[in-house]
Order: sequence, then C-alpha cells, then structure tokens
Amino acid sequence: MDEPEETLSLIIFSGTDDKLTSASTLVVGAAALGRRVDILLQFWGLDAFRADSVHREHGVAPEAPSDGARRLHDAHLAHWADVFAQAKEVGEVSIHACAQSMDALGITEQQLDPLVDGVEGIAAFMAEANGPVVFI
Amino acid sequence: MDEPEETLSLIIFSGTDDKLTSASTLVVGAAALGRRVDILLQFWGLDAFRADSVHREHGVAPEAPSDGARRLHDAHLAHWADVFAQAKEVGEVSIHACAQSMDALGITEQQLDPLVDGVEGIAAFMAEANGPVVFI
Amino acid sequence: MDEPEETLSLIIFSGTDDKLTSASTLVVGAAALGRRVDILLQFWGLDAFRADSVHREHGVAPEAPSDGARRLHDAHLAHWADVFAQAKEVGEVSIHACAQSMDALGITEQQLDPLVDGVEGIAAFMAEANGPVVFI
Repeated sequence: MDEPEETLSLIIFSGTDDKLTSASTLVVGAAALGRRVDILLQFWGLDAFRADSVHREHGVAPEAPSDGARRLHDAHLAHWADVFAQAKEVGEVSIHACAQSMDALGITEQQLDPLVDGVEGIAAFMAEANGPVVFI
Repeated sequence: MDEPEETLSLIIFSGTDDKLTSASTLVVGAAALGRRVDILLQFWGLDAFRADSVHREHGVAPEAPSDGARRLHDAHLAHWADVFAQAKEVGEVSIHACAQSMDALGITEQQLDPLVDGVEGIAAFMAEANGPVVFI
Repeated sequence: MDEPEETLSLIIFSGTDDKLTSASTLVVGAAALGRRVDILLQFWGLDAFRADSVHREHGVAPEAPSDGARRLHDAHLAHWADVFAQAKEVGEVSIHACAQSMDALGITEQQLDPLVDGVEGIAAFMAEANGPVVFI
C-alpha cells in the first residue's frame, strides 16, 4: 500500500441536500485517510453555501423517487455543513468559491458561510489538481 | 503505453436509466481494458439496485429533452443491469452498497439484487481509490 | 511541482447551459495549464452539440433555484460553445461523440457542430484515460 499523496479535487456544482450529503461524506472519508481535499464551489453548490442559506432545506435531486425527500429527511443524518466542518477539523480541506460563479450569481464574499476559505479561479484550482477530479 | 494499473472508482448516486446506461458502458469499457472497477452505490443509485426494482423503468434525468425518454426507449439498448453483469464476467468489478445510504433509505441487504457484492463504508471505498474517482 | 502530464478525460452527459458552462470553464482552465483534454459527448450533452442546437437555450439543471435561469442569463457569460472553441485554440483538446449515444438518439455525424472531431467508442476513450475521469 502506498500513502495516498494525491489531492482529491472536488467541484461542487449541485446544491441539493442529498448531493451535498454525498459530497460531505466523500470529503470526510478522504480527510480521515489523510488525503488533502480541495473543493471549488460553483453555481447552485455555491448558492447553498451562503451564510443565510446553509441550514435551510435545499430539497433533493429532481430525479429522486417521489418519496425521496421524506425518506432522506426521516433518516436524520448529520447535516452536510456539520460534516464539512468536521472534515476541516480532522484533515487538510480547503473550500473555495469559484470566481466566475460569484460574478454570475451576484454573490459577495461576505455573504458566504465561514466554511468557505476564499475565492479562487478555475486555473488556480486545476493547477493543484494532481489526482482525481470529481464533479458533483 | 503503460499498463492501466489504477482502479476506476465509481460512485453511482443517480438512479435514472440514462445515467445507469452511461455508467454501465463506462464500467464494461474499463473492465474490458483489464482495469479494476470499484463501485459504491449511494441514494437513488442504490435504490435502483433493489432486486424488485432493477428491471423496472427508472425514467431519464429530468434535464432530458421532452422526447428524451421515448428516444432512449426506442433505441432498445442492452439493459444496464445486463451490462453490469457482463462487466463482472469479463473483468474485476465489485459493486458495494454504501452503508450510510442503506440506513438512510431503510434498505436491507437481502432486498438488494445479487449484482451487489455487499455493504461498505465510504472509508473502505476511498482507501482503495488509487486512481480516478467518478461521480454519476 | 511536476509537469501535469496526465490527460483530463471528461464525459459530458448533461446538456443544460449551466453544466456546459461549468464544463467549458474546466476545459479551458486545464488547456491553459498545458494539460491534454479528451472529451466524450453522451446523451443530452451530445444532443446539445448538434449544429442546429448549439446556440439555442438549453435551460439550467432542474435543481437550480427558481430564479436560477434568469440569474445565469443576466450574467452574460461567454457562451460555452465559444469557450470550448477557445480551449481548442490554446491547448490540445479533442471532442468526440459517443458511438452508442449517436445510435441511441439517431444523430448522424453531419448533424454535429464542427467543434466535434469525430465519433468514438467508450473503449477508445477509456484507453486514453491515464488521469482523472470527470462525469458532468
């Protein structure tokens, strides 16, 4: 077994609670294994990280079965924002807002949740992507 | 050309027939090249692998054009479940249900299709992810 | 810092303007860093690359907030087709239509936009995938 040295680069495009739950699980799992995680928030994923929005309901992916939202809600999983916070505590996890999406959606840096470490362009993100790149 | 030694790690989150068709094509293509494939089923992707559900219609992604479902249906492609079965015959392909999603959706192991090799946590999945990680 | 020698392999399955914008940004960013990019168009992503379709409105992902389409439209971002064209000028970027999706959707090669370099099977695509594989 070789040490996992490659960064897990993750673009979070989607902003529904089921996909964000899945993303946060992936990130905390990677961080717990000592893997660096670099996250770029785009479009609706970025929208979900606004400070006034994080803990609101964001629904589920529209493809979910008709009882999907209820089943997810009833499962009482840890909230994805808390799982991202936990991942940042146990490992080396950075979360940046995509500069283009900030402009496109008219979001300012002070509107973002403190989980977000700053704003970054795609070039800076890709320059650090020396391993898998995941789009959620 | 170097031998493809890295595992293709695939998280199947979505459960629509078009995305599952795409996923099964990717997997059989990788397996035919001698590449190990490690699949983790989450949420609606897991739901689609219930034994009583696999061969039902799962619709298409909601973004599909209005005639998308009909065009896919009329194409008479091999069913994704059969393509996954074929991939497991030609190569080293494992399919696990995500433990968290099993709990969240209230699905038990005996409800799953025999294509599924067992239940696994995200940490075990990520520990084997030494190559690309794909989220569908 | 080691030179980025691995190809970025990208499957474009989705055909909405927000996801195609995100994909084109990723591709131009990677190409600008000198990274080879290999794109396979499937299903609704392929549908969006028909010559008579590229510059039409393709909507946004159904998960977008209710004002999402308007906010994206008002942002006046460069059109994704123009960004893909730019990426092909600055770097080594190839775009192929997935043979299976061509058959499934009944699309012929002469119906495709000139941005598309030809038709390819999943095996050829995976044979060149020596780095990250991204599914959008």
